[in-house]
Amino acid sequence: MPKQKAYALGIDLGGTKTLAAVVDITSGEVVGSARKRTRAERGQDFVSQRTIELATAALAAARLSSEDNIIALGVGAAGQIDRKNGVVVDAPNLGVHDMPLGGILGKQFGKPVYVGNDVEVAAQGEYLYGAGKGYKNFVCIFIGTGIGSGIVQNGHLYTGLTGTAGEVGHLIIEANGRICGCGSRGCLEAYASRTAITKAIMAEIHHGRPSFLADDAARQLRQGETIIRSGILASAIQQKDELTIEIISEAGVYLGRALGSILNFYNPDCIILGGGVIEAIDLLFETAVHRARTTALSAPSKTPILRAKLGDFSGVVGAACLGAQAAGYQFPVQ
Amino acid sequence: MPKQKAYALGIDLGGTKTLAAVVDITSGEVVGSARKRTRAERGQDFVSQRTIELATAALAAARLSSEDNIIALGVGAAGQIDRKNGVVVDAPNLGVHDMPLGGILGKQFGKPVYVGNDVEVAAQGEYLYGAGKGYKNFVCIFIGTGIGSGIVQNGHLYTGLTGTAGEVGHLIIEANGRICGCGSRGCLEAYASRTAITKAIMAEIHHGRPSFLADDAARQLRQGETIIRSGILASAIQQKDELTIEIISEAGVYLGRALGSILNFYNPDCIILGGGVIEAIDLLFETAVHRARTTALSAPSKTPILRAKLGDFSGVVGAACLGAQAAGYQFPVQ
Repeated sequence: MPKQKAYALGIDLGGTKTLAAVVDITSGEVVGSARKRTRAERGQDFVSQRTIELATAALAAARLSSEDNIIALGVGAAGQIDRKNGVVVDAPNLGVHDMPLGGILGKQFGKPVYVGNDVEVAAQGEYLYGAGKGYKNFVCIFIGTGIGSGIVQNGHLYTGLTGTAGEVGHLIIEANGRICGCGSRGCLEAYASRTAITKAIMAEIHHGRPSFLADDAARQLRQGETIIRSGILASAIQQKDELTIEIISEAGVYLGRALGSILNFYNPDCIILGGGVIEAIDLLFETAVHRARTTALSAPSKTPILRAKLGDFSGVVGAACLGAQAAGYQFPVQ
Repeated sequence: MPKQKAYALGIDLGGTKTLAAVVDITSGEVVGSARKRTRAERGQDFVSQRTIELATAALAAARLSSEDNIIALGVGAAGQIDRKNGVVVDAPNLGVHDMPLGGILGKQFGKPVYVGNDVEVAAQGEYLYGAGKGYKNFVCIFIGTGIGSGIVQNGHLYTGLTGTAGEVGHLIIEANGRICGCGSRGCLEAYASRTAITKAIMAEIHHGRPSFLADDAARQLRQGETIIRSGILASAIQQKDELTIEIISEAGVYLGRALGSILNFYNPDCIILGGGVIEAIDLLFETAVHRARTTALSAPSKTPILRAKLGDFSGVVGAACLGAQAAGYQFPVQ
């Protein structure tokens, strides 16, 4: 007898784009989705309307016989969250402060809503239906504009005392090193995020270093973009652009040191790496894994270091599942 | 009606000294103890005989009406442990390899024996009867010859995939920094352990830097000691010895960066600091706490950072309690 399907709606609310999807939570399958740029610069009301618009579009795309088939909604937002009250407390990249998103979506759709942090819900997605399946203790690290992670502990998300656990981007790996957006010096994020990679490449180009990227990246940045896209970096590497290879390798070495530190300290069952930069650039993943293994102590040095499996969908799948779980749906114990 | 007392025997088997104690596991009180130098250089059989000798002496000191009042034995040994089989797999500081200590003590005393890692049992001691009381998720860091920690997760010791979780001494905090005993560069242990502090002070003295410690430390090291004792460091600071203050402050800053990283990544309910160097030297504790708070992100920066409470006894109390627990004794849920 085939398993009874069940659906929930997941929303991944990021600084650049918002993605909504109807997810069959019994399989992790996305049955309908919609995405648009977030356009945070238009303000908080626009952003919350955008989530409603995209949720509605995802429901239409899923062609469910009735909205009633949705158990719940779940959101992952790039910021600090009050999970209990479903409020996005502070999200600089979304231009959002104290936004009661749970209440807004609950009123609109008449369903229970879970609001969590973007990397935390993505880690949950990878746990249930991605690379983390079968692992009970792991760290799922996402490398993009910034660097964050979700910690799964004994099969449950661990969010810590202040709800902010998993800030691997702010592991200090170079005392007195580069200044980080957080105000400290030497944080991983200042070396291995897409932002850091962009800055390092542009600094060399400004000093006259030749690069395949010189025209392309400069044009892109002049057009108001603040980061070089992963695809452009990947193609520069493919064309053996020396500068790009050097900077990405350096970022990989720093990332590897941080992974080694995590293996030594937390000794997880595995580490999962995801996010746009990791997906697009093999060199970054491979350099980081190699350095992690030579950095870690002997016992944990062989720990699996895996790529995330769900790609862009880890956030919406995880958010949908967390929404369903908060509404009382029981996932089978892995 | 007073609570029924119950006793177990704890042994803290360290590179320098071995301490055995009979512990009232209902209160954490030590009712009898014995200690001697371990003398690891005399070999593995000597070391296991030493634990039997000290356990017997502690039982005598406790003046129990009968050995039968002891529920179990517990050991914390400075090395890598096979907890399931009670074997000290590898312990360079004890000169011990594949020592079936659980079997040896079990045969001698006719009781169940738990064998664990020294910092892990000490963390358990602090959890049940020390500074960790009432906290469910914390990291208990011990600073001595090396630097290690025990992680308490949801009220239980977390030992990780390979049983080696908690190796905070091998967080990378200075990429391309000082070489560490583990072979990597820039580990915390190479900056803030007693060994690292000793090396840094002696290097300056060798370069002709004046110090209150010049004669004293040099004599001690000539006599075959490999570290400057904490008491000597503390008294040099009291006498305002500039070199000692400088090196201890530097160690404290590095330790603080690592604490900040732990607050950011693991976001525990508290961090506990213990071990000889922390107990003796206020300057190290205070410098580290200050730096941790300025390094951490805003939300976790106010997390309590506490001193361990049980001093030399955290290991034996924790070992006794873990022994009793493994033998089926139930501690009340905190």
